[in-house]
Amino acid sequence: MRTFIVKANGAHTAYDFSLKDLPGTSGRIDLLCRFLNSAFLLSHGIRKNVRVWLLLYGPPKPPKAIRFEGAELRARLNPDELSTAKLIVKALKAGEGLREPAKELEVLPGIYVSNLTFEDVIRRTLKGSELYYLHEGGKPIGKVNFGKNVAFVLGDHKGLSNEDEAFLDGIAERVSVGKKSYLASHVVAYVNITLDSLGVP
Amino acid sequence: MRTFIVKANGAHTAYDFSLKDLPGTSGRIDLLCRFLNSAFLLSHGIRKNVRVWLLLYGPPKPPKAIRFEGAELRARLNPDELSTAKLIVKALKAGEGLREPAKELEVLPGIYVSNLTFEDVIRRTLKGSELYYLHEGGKPIGKVNFGKNVAFVLGDHKGLSNEDEAFLDGIAERVSVGKKSYLASHVVAYVNITLDSLGVP
Repeated sequence: MRTFIVKANGAHTAYDFSLKDLPGTSGRIDLLCRFLNSAFLLSHGIRKNVRVWLLLYGPPKPPKAIRFEGAELRARLNPDELSTAKLIVKALKAGEGLREPAKELEVLPGIYVSNLTFEDVIRRTLKGSELYYLHEGGKPIGKVNFGKNVAFVLGDHKGLSNEDEAFLDGIAERVSVGKKSYLASHVVAYVNITLDSLGVP
Repeated sequence: MRTFIVKANGAHTAYDFSLKDLPGTSGRIDLLCRFLNSAFLLSHGIRKNVRVWLLLYGPPKPPKAIRFEGAELRARLNPDELSTAKLIVKALKAGEGLREPAKELEVLPGIYVSNLTFEDVIRRTLKGSELYYLHEGGKPIGKVNFGKNVAFVLGDHKGLSNEDEAFLDGIAERVSVGKKSYLASHVVAYVNITLDSLGVP
């Protein structure tokens, strides 16, 4: 089982943006669409052993957490950005009235929205998975001995804050795919193919 | 120098599709947008050592070749699909009146359109680069000794035809990133990061 967690500090937490201009109006929800594409899609089908947590921390009401569960996804995840953005919009709309701090609402089969925080999600994930923080300065990914259940934390295009990094220190091993600074979606594609080649489930 | 060549058998060769529904109306030009994203983009900036050839073979007037030259690109290549699709539309419009079989028209700095065929582009590429065909059954990419100038051929979501494969036999070594069938954009992201780690320019 592979879990990918991305914290998107600017991503809007209500549907107040334009699908015609995601990069300019949504706080970069386009980035999250490509992230989902890389995490789940194979040429013919989707990876059922993948879970993705999108942690949205932009205006107007942060945080919102959207969980995608590969094994349960029925709504077909298409490769294009726009159709994925529409799934995120559906989740944000469903999550608007949600007041409880920990309740997850099922939006579509395999897609859940909640007010869970980044810290909540990390703590939950730690119960069943080894946690890694993808960072340029980490241990080369090829040298890591991965177990059966692995989880990776990534920042958005601006990276994680010092506070978030301090929270992860000691609970997440830093792992690197290279010295350059890559787009999150490219990193996830690389990690998935690398884990395949290492025989990680 | 890295060259990526993708043959898109269904991609439309004139602007007769809707930007609102690229997957459904353009013969999968959305796939080419994500391909360009993976080939060129780093977190902060673009890869100047990359050239991409898109070979479009869909209706109404195949073929059209669009070349993107990293070192010359001024029009900012943005990560989102829609803005990249608009660059392709611009190239298709500029190429409409083009009759010459080999002339390349500069559409924007670093973006060229022509009527060059897949075979033309492969022959040109062979003059300066070692040619590889990315194929599930090929030699594992980690075991290849790459030179300074490398070129990779990929098929679209349906793969290359037997005819195209026969043409490549003997001139392109088959290289594999794994046994699974991956999306072209994921393969290119993986190849780029792998070449970085191998120290290939």
